[in-house]
This record gives sequence, C-alpha cells and structure tokens, in this order.
Amino acid sequence: MASEELNPVYEELMRNYNAELTHSGVNGERLAKRLHELSFIGYTQVGGVKRPGLSDKEQKAKELVKSWMAEAGLSVTEDGAGNVKGRLDGKDSAGRAIASGSHVDSVPNGGNFDGPLGVLSALEVVEAWKETGYVPPKPYEVIIFTDEEGSRFNSGLSGSRAMTGDISEEEMNQLRDYNGETLEQVLERYGSSLEAFKKAKRDVAELELFVEVHIEQGKKLEQADQPVGIVNGIAGPAWLEVEFTGEAGHAGNTPMIGRKDPLVAAAAFIQKIPEFPSLVSETAVATVGKLEVSPNGINVIPEKVTLHVDIRDIYESPRDQLLDRIVQEAESIAATHQIELLVKQNTKIQPVPIDDELQAQLADSLKKFDIVPVYIPSGAGHDAMILGRHIPVAMLFVRSKDGISHNPKEWSSLNDCIAGIHVLKDFIEKKMEQ
Amino acid sequence: MASEELNPVYEELMRNYNAELTHSGVNGERLAKRLHELSFIGYTQVGGVKRPGLSDKEQKAKELVKSWMAEAGLSVTEDGAGNVKGRLDGKDSAGRAIASGSHVDSVPNGGNFDGPLGVLSALEVVEAWKETGYVPPKPYEVIIFTDEEGSRFNSGLSGSRAMTGDISEEEMNQLRDYNGETLEQVLERYGSSLEAFKKAKRDVAELELFVEVHIEQGKKLEQADQPVGIVNGIAGPAWLEVEFTGEAGHAGNTPMIGRKDPLVAAAAFIQKIPEFPSLVSETAVATVGKLEVSPNGINVIPEKVTLHVDIRDIYESPRDQLLDRIVQEAESIAATHQIELLVKQNTKIQPVPIDDELQAQLADSLKKFDIVPVYIPSGAGHDAMILGRHIPVAMLFVRSKDGISHNPKEWSSLNDCIAGIHVLKDFIEKKMEQ
Repeated sequence: MASEELNPVYEELMRNYNAELTHSGVNGERLAKRLHELSFIGYTQVGGVKRPGLSDKEQKAKELVKSWMAEAGLSVTEDGAGNVKGRLDGKDSAGRAIASGSHVDSVPNGGNFDGPLGVLSALEVVEAWKETGYVPPKPYEVIIFTDEEGSRFNSGLSGSRAMTGDISEEEMNQLRDYNGETLEQVLERYGSSLEAFKKAKRDVAELELFVEVHIEQGKKLEQADQPVGIVNGIAGPAWLEVEFTGEAGHAGNTPMIGRKDPLVAAAAFIQKIPEFPSLVSETAVATVGKLEVSPNGINVIPEKVTLHVDIRDIYESPRDQLLDRIVQEAESIAATHQIELLVKQNTKIQPVPIDDELQAQLADSLKKFDIVPVYIPSGAGHDAMILGRHIPVAMLFVRSKDGISHNPKEWSSLNDCIAGIHVLKDFIEKKMEQ
Repeated sequence: MASEELNPVYEELMRNYNAELTHSGVNGERLAKRLHELSFIGYTQVGGVKRPGLSDKEQKAKELVKSWMAEAGLSVTEDGAGNVKGRLDGKDSAGRAIASGSHVDSVPNGGNFDGPLGVLSALEVVEAWKETGYVPPKPYEVIIFTDEEGSRFNSGLSGSRAMTGDISEEEMNQLRDYNGETLEQVLERYGSSLEAFKKAKRDVAELELFVEVHIEQGKKLEQADQPVGIVNGIAGPAWLEVEFTGEAGHAGNTPMIGRKDPLVAAAAFIQKIPEFPSLVSETAVATVGKLEVSPNGINVIPEKVTLHVDIRDIYESPRDQLLDRIVQEAESIAATHQIELLVKQNTKIQPVPIDDELQAQLADSLKKFDIVPVYIPSGAGHDAMILGRHIPVAMLFVRSKDGISHNPKEWSSLNDCIAGIHVLKDFIEKKMEQ
C-alpha cells in the first residue's frame, strides 16, 4: 500500500518501543496500529491530517473508532451534535459514570496525536479491563467530542458545548463555516439537524468525573525529562477580531504623507502585542495567527486589514486584563494612524481550575510508574475545559517532541503514550473503587 | 436597462458638463457615451470594472474601441500580443508617426478612467480632425496596449514590453497567471500564440513621439485647482517579494519567550518602511500592499509570512538606495527575531525622464486654454514609461477626484477630461507641423 509507505506512523511508533510497557492488558502495538489507521483519514500530502469538524473525514474517523468500541464491548451511541459515546455499564449501571475521551477532528494541517490519543487512551483502558477481566464498579464512558479545534466555524469545542448546553441559540444561528454555510446546513450534510444538535444537551451531572489525556503541545515535559505530566489549570481563550480600515490608493501616486494605510497600523499593533502578556501573568500568551489584507494587490495601498488575536491565561483576571490592554492598544494605534477600528469579541471562555485533590491523586498514580510529577498549565482549550464548568475534570499531558503540535511534525513516542495510559488506567480504577 | 441605472457613468459625466467645451471637433457628449459603454464590460457589483489583461473582458473592450476606430476612418490592426493600432496615414504616409493611447484592462476592482481615458482621448483627436477636415502632415497612431495593470501575471505592461522587445524569453516562460496558467496557455485561449506574441516586437523608432493622457491618480492637481498637468518624469517600480519563515506552534501552549513568530517580524518590518522614502527623495514611495500568512489559523503561531514591497521614485539612484535600505532592514529584523529570510526581486524598472523641451511645449498648449502648468512626477508606471526607454514620450495628467484610483470611486469630471483632450490635440498638431 503506497500511501502507508509515505506515512509510516505504525513503523515509527514501534521503532523504539519498549515492549515491557505492554502489560496489565494495555497494549502498545494495538495503540500504534490504531493511530496508524486513523492517520490515513484526511491524510495531507505533507504527512499531516485534515479532518475539519462535521466533515466526512471526521465522520469516517468516528466510524472507525466506533467499530473498535463495539469490538471492545461498549454500547455505542451518537448524539445530534455528532458526539460519540461508548458505554460500559459496570457493576452498578444506575450510578454516576466516570468518563474519558477527546476528539478526532483536526486543524487544517494537523498531526496524528492531538485528539486521537485521548480517545484511544480512554478506549485502551476498556481493552485492558476486557483482557484482565476487571469489571468496574461504576459505569464508564469513552467519549469522542465533535469539532473541538474550531477550524470549521472559527469557533471550536462545538461538540462539548452542545453536550453541556454552553452554546447559545444566537451562536448556533450566526455560525458560518469556511464555505459560508450555516451550522444547520453543515449538520444536514452530516446527517443530523439543528433540532437534533440542540437535543445533544445532556445532564452532565450524570458524570462523576471527566478525565482527558492529551499531548502537551509544549516543551515543559521534554525539559523535565518526564513522559507524562499533570495539568493544573486550563487556560480560557479569548478571541478578538480586529478590523483596521484606511484609505486605498495607488501605491505609486499617493505621497507617503497623508496616507491612511491600515496595514502599517496593523503592523504597529502586531509588533506591540508580545510585550503585554508578561505584564499580567507568567502564563499568559497572545498571538496573531490569522490576518487578511484587502484588496491585497502589490501596487495598491490596502483599504482594510482584518486580524484575529488569540489571548489566553489559566487565570481569568489577568487574562481579562490582557484583553483590555490589547484592545486599548488597538484603539490608541488606530487614533494615531487616523484609521477606523472595529473590534469584535467572538469567543471568551472562562479558564478552568483543576481540583487539588484530583491533582494529588494523579500524582500518586504517576509515582507508581516512577514518573516525577510535573505540573503544567494548559494553554490550549480542551473539551475538559467545557466539562470543567459543570463537573470535576482532570487532565494528563503526554510529552510532545519539540513541543510541536497543529503540525504534521507533531509526535509523541509510543513509550510516552503507553505510560500515559497506564497512569490513566490506575487513576480511573482508583476513582472507580472510591 | 436596469444595469445602466446602477452605473450611470454617462449621466454623471453630463451632469455638470460645460457644453462650451465642445468645440473644434472635440465632443464631450461622445466621450461620455464611450466611457459609459466601456463601463459595462467587466462591470462589478460594487460599480467598478474587472478586465484582466488578455481576458475575454479586455478583448471585448478592445473590439468595441476597434469599431469606433474604424468608424473614425482608422486602419485597424492587432499584433500577437493583443496591442491594437488604429492608423491614419496623413499627408506623408512614409514618415515617422506620432502616436497616442493607453490601455483598457483594469485592476481587479478598478474604475472607468484609468486606461480608457487615454485611449479615447487619442481617438477623440482623430474624431475632431475628421469633423474639422484637418489632415495631419505625418501619420498618426491610436494604440491600445495589452495588460498594462499586471493583475493577471503579477507583472504588468506586457503589451508595451512585447512591442518594444523589453520582455525576455525567460520571463515569457516563467509567467503564471492567477489560475496557474502559462503565458502561452493564456495567449492561446485569447486566440493568439507565444510565437505571435514574440513577433509583436516592432521597430518603435518608426514613431517620432508617444504621448499618453492618463488620470493623475493623486491629489496634486486638485490641490492646485487645475484640470490638467504635465508629467515631469515616470517613476520606475521595483517589486520585492519578502518571505519571513519562523516556527509554527500552538498559540495557547507556546510560551511567549522563545517564539519565532514570522508575523511579528513582518510587522516590525512593515511598520518601519514608511520612515525610509523621505530619507532618499521627496518623490520616493514604498508600500506593502500584498501579504499572506501561512497557515493562517486563529490559534496557530504562523510559520511563514510572504509580503510584497512596491518601491518607486522618478529618479533611479534614490530609488535604488531606498530598495537597498529596505532589504537591509528586512535582514536586520530577521536576524533580531531569529527568523529565516528570503528576498526576491521580481521587477525593477528604470524610471523615465521626460524631455524638458517637450514639457515646455505642453506648457504652451496648457496656457492656450488658460491652464496654469503644474508639473507632477508620475508615481505609477505607464505604457509611456516602456516606450520612453526607446523614443521620446510625453504625458498629460487629468485631475482625479480625491486622488482615488484602482477603485470603483475613481472619477474625473467630463470638463477636465475634455480640457485634457484639447491640450493633447493642440500639442499633437504642433508636433505634426514641426
């Protein structure tokens, strides 16, 4: 199979695998095979994946995981938002469940671990129980959330927000995807409907705890030389859309003096942003990742520049301070440059703290496997962040090679992934017995 | 006709027309009607025109003007580059001709005067001669040059350069249009061929003089309150393509310290550029009009930013000094930000001076119509610039409302346009009799 040769995820994962890590029902080879199979769905020429939320590619990835869930003995259902649930009843099917999972959608040219690792880790715990004959005292759910990344609608976490009811009717009506389609149109193409999407809301208090395994997407574990770490808080992103409008003109015939060039104003703004985060908090970050110039002609002074600022911290107050400081800066630059300014706030999500007791229990599980606990703030939003507004959540990070993610080069060794699953399994079993 | 109501060029032009300007065979109403008819070819929803070089729209515009040329008694031919020539033999058909003209292509959302006014002015001189029975002593040519704006191949003036032989085989082979098509493919679709394009080269020394009427695309005539002005030099544009490459990463999980964000570097660069032109010359300008971010995701630190700098002056040495200063700045910023830099120079055109004697003769013609001579450097490149490398050229600017061009709002009053034609006619007649 020619495409496998181009994308040897399985081979790469197995190359340095320490087979002694396959024990207690957790199986490195199975995980490697599954990551490998998923890597072909939405495969991009440069070795990454493109699986936008609610696309046929995301759907195909879910179908594949659903087949594995069914093989593992889970009862599989999907809600109107496309969230997949694989449920194991346990000894007391009426009690509150413990859940684990993540997502299988990706950014436009993403990697093979962001999302899938969390889903397959949650599933691997079930596989292990099946092999060892362990029957959990409480129900257990493996969840795949829809459209976590937000690459479809410029506004992510749709699946988890549909489940918790944190997506407003107004937002549902306003969302437009990269083709200009409404959420309703996208859902219908997917085989669902807006009505069914609304009905995806469930009483998440049925869950005692949600725990998510995710790649770190940073370098702290690499620096600390540990395979797995404990998330001590999840940063809430705030997204600003900033529009600078000036006066178009001929690049050759408009004297420099008197120009109203919105790109020069935008540049002054972008260049200033990196100075602000450290003023409010050690963990705060701010980024301009997306920018468009109009009309974007070589010999035309731009008329309009639209850019997006992503602002985050794990603490709400400094995050909001930073947000205010950045808006202030845009206003001051627009005034100086005599440029019109329009600032829209598209997304503003509360940071989620993680309970100290849960962190301590995760630390105990880590130590069992001789891993030194490292505590890491999550700069990225995750489905656990949405659930964390309603129920207790915990998160484990698995070491990322060079800290790279949202990129075909995203990588975590199989040894580190399997270490994470052993910790997850131990922690869940502890919570099952409590 | 509904579309005419949307685009009342004729009505707008006639509204404040001073009918006394229609004399000596020059007819304001005829010009207004012709500008009006052309405005429907490539009409855009927002009231502008889109007639890319070598498109069916440009071709349609040429066909219309050709029909007017034939009616006016010109012998019409078209070369393999699509340049149209309408020739009047005059009393001495063997002598060197005087030529005038411009282009009918446009930028993606351009106006109704940039190009067409020069072509129709040149034609209006013939119409006037026809009405008054004047037979010029020398041959006269009305020329429509192909693809002046460069919106098709990111490299303009193809028609005039094909005529003078200033387009290399290498460039002909390398050009790719907005659809990725080669020049050869585009020419074949147009009904020509690469061979015929090469044969468009003519001995331009057959022309004694080329004179072009064009809208000013600036505000100097408006400031001086004069309808028409004299171009004292044509700026040569140099185009740089600058690529900053950094390190992509997750916007939330990558600490601010240690980032290699190419957009922050590009912003520092763009913000600095406006400081440089005045250091080298009063007339120099530099503009970043086009910029692209990759991958351009809200929550992804960019990996690459590609931008284009347009650098111009009517004097070559300060222009080249400015070019060097800007490249130096890019290098210094890339080094400071630890960003990879790639600078390509796509276009570098020599500025063209305009003979003092010709300027003085134009001034005499202006004074005849009570216009005070204002001398204006042309920041924009024009077909006259290409011909000016080989033969004497002269240019007249007609006042632009608010200096706006390359925009649907581009406008010149009919009074100003007709004033320009009277000056052109007087000047050409003077040169005919010399």
